Order: sequence, then structure tokens, then C-alpha cells
Amino acid sequence: MRILLVGAGGVGNAIAKIAARRTFFEKLVVSDYDIARAQSTISWIAAKHGVTVASRFAAARIDASDPDDVAAVAREHGVTHVMNAVEPKFVPTVFAGALAAGADYLDMAMSLSEPHHTYPHSQTGVKLGDDQFAQAPDWETEGRLALVGMGVEPGLSDVFARYAADHLFSEIDELGTRDGANLVVRDEAGNEIFAPSFSIWTTIEECLNPPVVWEKDKGWFTTEPFSEPEVFVFPEGIGPVECVNVEHEEVLLMPRWIDAKRVTFKYGLGNEFIGILKTLHQLGLDKTEPLTVRSPNGPVQVAPRDVVAAGLPDPASIGPLMTGKTCAGLWVTGVGNDGARREVYLYHVADNEWTMTEYESQCVVWQTALNPVIALELLAAGTWTGRGVLGPEAFDAAPFLELMSRPVADGGYGQPFGLEDRLVTT
Amino acid sequence: MRILLVGAGGVGNAIAKIAARRTFFEKLVVSDYDIARAQSTISWIAAKHGVTVASRFAAARIDASDPDDVAAVAREHGVTHVMNAVEPKFVPTVFAGALAAGADYLDMAMSLSEPHHTYPHSQTGVKLGDDQFAQAPDWETEGRLALVGMGVEPGLSDVFARYAADHLFSEIDELGTRDGANLVVRDEAGNEIFAPSFSIWTTIEECLNPPVVWEKDKGWFTTEPFSEPEVFVFPEGIGPVECVNVEHEEVLLMPRWIDAKRVTFKYGLGNEFIGILKTLHQLGLDKTEPLTVRSPNGPVQVAPRDVVAAGLPDPASIGPLMTGKTCAGLWVTGVGNDGARREVYLYHVADNEWTMTEYESQCVVWQTALNPVIALELLAAGTWTGRGVLGPEAFDAAPFLELMSRPVADGGYGQPFGLEDRLVTT
Repeated sequence: MRILLVGAGGVGNAIAKIAARRTFFEKLVVSDYDIARAQSTISWIAAKHGVTVASRFAAARIDASDPDDVAAVAREHGVTHVMNAVEPKFVPTVFAGALAAGADYLDMAMSLSEPHHTYPHSQTGVKLGDDQFAQAPDWETEGRLALVGMGVEPGLSDVFARYAADHLFSEIDELGTRDGANLVVRDEAGNEIFAPSFSIWTTIEECLNPPVVWEKDKGWFTTEPFSEPEVFVFPEGIGPVECVNVEHEEVLLMPRWIDAKRVTFKYGLGNEFIGILKTLHQLGLDKTEPLTVRSPNGPVQVAPRDVVAAGLPDPASIGPLMTGKTCAGLWVTGVGNDGARREVYLYHVADNEWTMTEYESQCVVWQTALNPVIALELLAAGTWTGRGVLGPEAFDAAPFLELMSRPVADGGYGQPFGLEDRLVTT
Repeated sequence: MRILLVGAGGVGNAIAKIAARRTFFEKLVVSDYDIARAQSTISWIAAKHGVTVASRFAAARIDASDPDDVAAVAREHGVTHVMNAVEPKFVPTVFAGALAAGADYLDMAMSLSEPHHTYPHSQTGVKLGDDQFAQAPDWETEGRLALVGMGVEPGLSDVFARYAADHLFSEIDELGTRDGANLVVRDEAGNEIFAPSFSIWTTIEECLNPPVVWEKDKGWFTTEPFSEPEVFVFPEGIGPVECVNVEHEEVLLMPRWIDAKRVTFKYGLGNEFIGILKTLHQLGLDKTEPLTVRSPNGPVQVAPRDVVAAGLPDPASIGPLMTGKTCAGLWVTGVGNDGARREVYLYHVADNEWTMTEYESQCVVWQTALNPVIALELLAAGTWTGRGVLGPEAFDAAPFLELMSRPVADGGYGQPFGLEDRLVTT
């Protein structure tokens, strides 16, 4: 397996660092628009693991917005798998470049949605991933695989859904992804500061787009932003967090392969962050169309959302200032294999202190990066095979969770997942 | 009197329109960085009042950031008075240009402050107007007058302070400017939208800078932003509005000429707007130093606050979508001339429906513009005279309020002010 990693930002950097401890691939090309970022990742690997390990890595410059450039870099390095780790707005071009180069493809977020023009808060317009699924016949014809949505959420959450359907439930009412954290970022003086742990650009996209829900009788439909608030209690000391519906890939992926009555995604944003996002929207600062703005060098064209992102700390850089844990998981309700009601929360927790010590990578970024590396290893081994455009739930979940959980000493990733049976039987 | 009006934005435009109904000046040169704005103001006057009235106006291009250019335009037109109607950041250059050209000067906001480097929320650093007052000897030497802070607030509020000291009180406890409104802006569909009625750039500057307070025993000192919240009941149907301390010129001007125990300025921001300003600050979007931001044409330098301003409707353009009234006034407490406790609110209300019908100018902008025109008329008549750098309270308030209140039919401005005695005597 020869991998082209597109993007050496927070998640791309962590993917390379996690992969450096594994032997399943022959070559991993770390590419970025700014080649210095790619080189810096490889230097870290050389310093940590030595030059032999680092010799399996190479740096390249890439323009993710140009499919021809993506294909050219992939061909130059004889790449078999393109691992997309740039912002979702570049999904169409990286996706097209991989197919043009005859490579398989993985990403962690799918092609973007467009709200319904007339009824944005009740009907779907262009859905997340629609552009990619529309091209599935091309991938099938070419005999190539695009494994889409293979981060932590989407990704591990979808693996949990397949696991629940295959091993825990005979009938599923709801597949409800629930994401929450108790992360706090403080400045050098110890004062709590506002510093989102994930790309604010993507967070705004997810949270302000109309949330999408799937129901068996109704299909996909949308709601007002921040709908159906619910306090969900997260494990391992995180505790109760206010969660709201958010547009997310799981809702588009799970119903394609798994039988359930309802599929939702709720994000534990908390009240303060919800207020901030509402204000950004009210002031038009979430917009991605450029505005004309005065500058020291005369009027310039700039998108307000890019300015919001530029003014906040880089999520990949705040790890040393952050404390707490992040939890990704799936809340499943229905009828268990024994015919009795069952309600289960399947989850994985990452502790920032541990990810910083082990990887110099903050926990949200690291947790996202872990899962595509495991998937690549299963593909390299031939444990997972497929063609066309497939979500993580199209593959057998058991070997994924087994490899993830198995101790490092025994060749696994040493990352056990949790399973909480929450139904109180009287 | 030959006037150079610098700036044909919302307030500058309204100054020209108000002046068009008066005969006290020989020439008014409307100047702007964008000469088309100046020309458009004069075209409006020609259409409304005829070519004879409009012939007393001329349009010019000006660079308010360049004192030499300000002086050159002033000299070219033989200007006697420079009326500054651009953003406060250009105060130093317009101020210097006027003196260089040997003209008198008026503005509606004073040179900007800089917070104290070590104790921003308890001690003052550079105060509003400090730069201008430091140059007072130059103005005195040249025999020229700079009448600073002569809008509505500061401006009319300072006139009220002098009036209260001369005619209503024997001893003043507090001179408290209180500003509130019940303005609502709706889009074409009738939905309420966020559209501040005054420059957001200036509003952020005022509201996020540490508020300044003056006390007789303590001098000037600062507090945390949004301190001392108070619900003040405004007249003429506006009703109760949450007001907080805000940095404003009145606090720097009034104690220089009027004896009082305490001077404050509270702005009726309301809870929603306070929340928005806090969020902008939390995200660094209030900053005026340029950031590097990606753009369709490569990285650009842009100040976040300029982006916030560029994304909101132009305050001068929202008049047709706005309903409600704005109230500017001064809350005075102390001992009346009869030796009894007295508490008085002196105020002026502008109704948006009226200002739009009469002037096609929204009420906050129009109310600001009214007062410098009255002041210019008093200077032209020789009723007000002075040299050096002086605030409105350095002049006799009675002729100002008389000219303002007198009916239009009798040669006045037809804008009565209100006086509410609020102390309930038991």
C-alpha cells in the first residue's frame, strides 16, 4: 500500500504520526499546499522514531483544489490510496483526482450540502455526500473503492452502528450519534479562553446548516438549527452536556446500509457555544461568499467565515493549553437479541493529556485521525474489500473494533471502546 | 461663513440636508473620499429645494487621512469652518488640516483613547480628546476655535449640562447622559434583522473600551466594560431599557467646565446587543489590527472590525426599514435653585418616521447632524465665540436651546426639548 495523504493540518499531521507506529504500508506521501507543514510532520517522526521509520515517508506540495494536481502527485508516487485530510470544501477535487489516478480513496467528511431553496428547514436540498454517491457508478466501473466518512464521527460512529445491528440488536429504533466533551482551554495566565477544538470553519458549516434527520416512514428531512435540545450524560467523568441536532454525515450514511426507524446526530455544543454560533449567523459572519472590505492596501475581497477562522487559535496548536476528554459515540435503542428492550451507548473517549504526551496532538484531532489509519490497515490486509462509494457501515465492524481494542503489545492500537447498557430494568 | 464638510456618509449627508434649509452660510463644500457621495447629496438638495439653494453647495474629493489634503481643499474654497463628519479615527488629521488652513473646526467625536497598559479597567491611559486638548495652546495662539464633541451625544447632552448648571441647579450630584431607543429594523419580509442604527465600528470602540467615569474626589477612572447596569425609563413611549457604562466624550468634557460630584455616560444597549458585543470581543472580531486572511486572490491583510462593519447594512441606508424613536438626554441630580432635592431628565427625541419623511435620513443619524448645524449658525451670528479647544458646555446653552426649540415659522429649527422633573415629593 502506497498512501497519498492530502493535507498536513491538525488531522493530517496526526494521521502520519499514528501511521508511523504501524508497518502495513510501504510509503506515505505527506502533501500540503504549504510543503513546509508536510516536512515538519516528517521531521517530528524522524526525531521520535528514527530515520528508518521516517524513510517510509515523503513530503510533497499539492493543490487540493485542482484534481489534475492531485492526480499528478498520486501518479508520481505510484499511490494506491488517497487519504483526504483537507477541509470538506476540497472533497470534490481530491475525490476526482484519486479516481483519475486510478487510486482508492478515503475521507473523513463528505461533499457539502446545499439547503433547499424554498423550505430549508423542512426539506433537504443537496445532501451531504450526494455529489459523491452520484459518482458511485464511475468508481464501480473502474473497480475502485471510495470509503467515505471514515474519521471518528462520521467513521467510528458508523462502525458502531454496524456492530450494534450485527451483534447487539434484533430491531433498532434509533441510531443516535452523541458527541460531547469537557474540554477547557486556558491562556498562559490560566484564564479560560474561547478556542474551539475543531475547525471553526467546519463547525459553523455543520451547526448552521439545517440539521438533517432520517425516519423510516419519512426519509430524510431537515429542521431549524439547534433543534430537539437534549441533555445527554457522557461517560468517564464528562457528565451531562446540552446536545442539539446538527447536520452530519452519519444521518446520510447509516440508513443506506442499516435497518433502523430513526437516525439522528446530536452535538454537545453547550449553551455558550450555541449562543456564539447564533450571533455569528445573525451578523452574517458565517458567510463564505467574499465581501468587499477596506484594508491597508485598498479594498480586498474576503469571506467573513475565513476572517473568523483566521482570528482564532489554530485548533491543532491549542493542545498544550487544553485539559479534559472528548467522547464520540452512538446511542442505540431497540430490541436486543434476547427479544427484550435494550438501550446501549457505544463510545470511545480520548483524554487530551494522554494524546499530548504520546503524540503531541490534541485529543479531538487525534481521535479523528486514529480511525482512518485502522481502516487503511484493514484494507491493506484485505480484511476489508469493496468497490464503489461505500460508508464505514458497509464493512464488517468486528475486525475494526478488535484491531482498535487489542493491546499494542499484541499488535493492536490499544484503544478499547466502551459499551454501556443504560436501560434500567425494574 | 464658508464651511468645509468632511465626509458625506450618513451624518455628513444629513448635515448638508439640514443646512440647506438655513441661510446663515455663504458656501458649504461637501467633500468625501468618494466624490460621487458628495455629488449625490447635492443632487438631493437640488431636487428638493431647487438650484438656487443647491448653488450654495459644492462637491470635492478629500482624503481625510492626510492633513495636507484637508488644508489644501479648505484653502482652495476659502473655508472659514471645517466640519468634521468622518469616523473618529480621522480626527487627528482633519483637526491638523483645519488649523494649517487657518480655519475654525467642529467635530462630533473626539480623538481616540488608548487603554492603560497595566490597569485598563481601573485607570485611564490616553483619554478621549487628550490629543486634541494637548494642542489647545496652538489653537489659542492662532486665535482659532476648535469646538469639539458637538453632535447629539456628545453635543446636545453637554449643552443640557451647561443649561442645568446655569438655570436649574445650585449644586449637582451627577451629570448622567442616558441614551436609549425602541428602534426596530425589519427586512422586506417583515422579519426583525440585526442592523445597528449607528456605525458599528464606532459602537464597538465605545462599548468595548473600558468605560470612563469622573468623580470629584477621584478624577477620571475606568471600569470593566458594561459596568453598573441600570434600567432607565425613557420618555415618549420608549420605556425601560437596560443601560450600562460606556466610554463617551461627555465624561471627559463636562468636568472641565461644570461643577458636579460625578459624571457618567450610560448607553441603552439592551441585553441582546450587549451579548453580541461580548461575543465579538471573545472571538477577537473587535480588533482593528489587520490579520492575514486567505482570499480568492491569495492572502490579504484585513482588520476583523472592518469585516464586521462591511457585512452589516449601512446605518444610513436602513431608515426605510426602521420604526421607532431614539432619545438622547441628560439625567441630572442634585439641589435645585430653591434649595430642595431635584432630579431632572433633559432630553430630545427623534422619530424615525418623521426624519425619513422630512429628510430621507434615519433618526439616529439625523439627530446627530442637527446639533452641529445649530452650533454653526450660532457661530455665524457671533452669538457663540471662543478660541482654543472648547467643548459645547463652554458656551451659553440658552441661545442654543432657544434656536433649536423655536418653531420653524419663526426662524427656528422646530425641535423642542423635554424636561421631566422625576423626583417624587412626598
